[in-house]
Amino acid sequence: MASYGEDKQDLLLRLRRIEGQLKGIQRMIEEDRYCVDVLTQISSVIAASHKVATIILSDHIRGCVRDALADGGDGGDRHVEELISVIEAFSNKK
Amino acid sequence: MASYGEDKQDLLLRLRRIEGQLKGIQRMIEEDRYCVDVLTQISSVIAASHKVATIILSDHIRGCVRDALADGGDGGDRHVEELISVIEAFSNKK
Amino acid sequence: MASYGEDKQDLLLRLRRIEGQLKGIQRMIEEDRYCVDVLTQISSVIAASHKVATIILSDHIRGCVRDALADGGDGGDRHVEELISVIEAFSNKK
Amino acid sequence: MASYGEDKQDLLLRLRRIEGQLKGIQRMIEEDRYCVDVLTQISSVIAASHKVATIILSDHIRGCVRDALADGGDGGDRHVEELISVIEAFSNKK
Repeated sequence: MASYGEDKQDLLLRLRRIEGQLKGIQRMIEEDRYCVDVLTQISSVIAASHKVATIILSDHIRGCVRDALADGGDGGDRHVEELISVIEAFSNKK
Repeated sequence: MASYGEDKQDLLLRLRRIEGQLKGIQRMIEEDRYCVDVLTQISSVIAASHKVATIILSDHIRGCVRDALADGGDGGDRHVEELISVIEAFSNKK
Repeated sequence: MASYGEDKQDLLLRLRRIEGQLKGIQRMIEEDRYCVDVLTQISSVIAASHKVATIILSDHIRGCVRDALADGGDGGDRHVEELISVIEAFSNKK
Repeated sequence: MASYGEDKQDLLLRLRRIEGQLKGIQRMIEEDRYCVDVLTQISSVIAASHKVATIILSDHIRGCVRDALADGGDGGDRHVEELISVIEAFSNKK
């Protein structure tokens, strides 16, 4: 069901690191640190989250989508439409 | 080879409209129009170009990628890797 | 120095909520939950982080940048150049 | 009124080049060229349009916004709020 099995430890490590960055940002705000320094840290959280998403999306296409299409049948159609929705959600442009 | 056959006329119409917007932006700059008004037009060009890309990408997944995977064989792998590169190029995040 | 004083509690609340979402995503991955469900959660973390950045950036322009420019002097130039770099980092396009 | 005076020729050249790329994309679609090759060209149009926007936005901050704030008065407030709207429109995230 989940295609990211091989990347699981790497993904968990990346997510824990992002969680640590978020705690750091909260501390910076409590200490009234300079806006631009806080913004730089948030920018880094966003980039790291995008990286996590890219890994899962790649695994998903290589795994779930590829398997459903190789199977033939309705599962393929459903996966293709779902994939297009996911890509649109991430590109976030109308 | 091209999966966007059914959307061809719609795509050409959209691209001609974007070309018209670009001519309009050049005119605005020649006439020294207010920066923010020019920026609004460029923002609209970018949104319209994203829309064109989304249509072609969706057709590509529904067509070329789906066919290559349904075929089995090496073509599927190549298409999956290529698709992931295209998505990364459009999301443009590291 | 920090222009986000009035939004401090709101920002801290938002960041704690994002931290909670990140913990949830780690749990989902440990439980091998479906890729697209995980991606939807990451997409929500990214949107929420962008919202935090937008609040801080707006406060920064209304506060630090405006004050430095109203003061005249070199501080204004420095703030303007720094602001442009921050905007470029967030738009993340070359 | 327009702050991009010094970059005018550079901006017009860039916009003419984007217009040329758009004509090329229309030709590619008429000739049923491979989806991914078309997508690569659209990606290049979007990047080039972002570059034009970044130049105008930087000039706008260095010019119109800076002048309005240095003047004091209501013009500064209006410019700051307008700038924030423009940045949000370009980052295009909710």
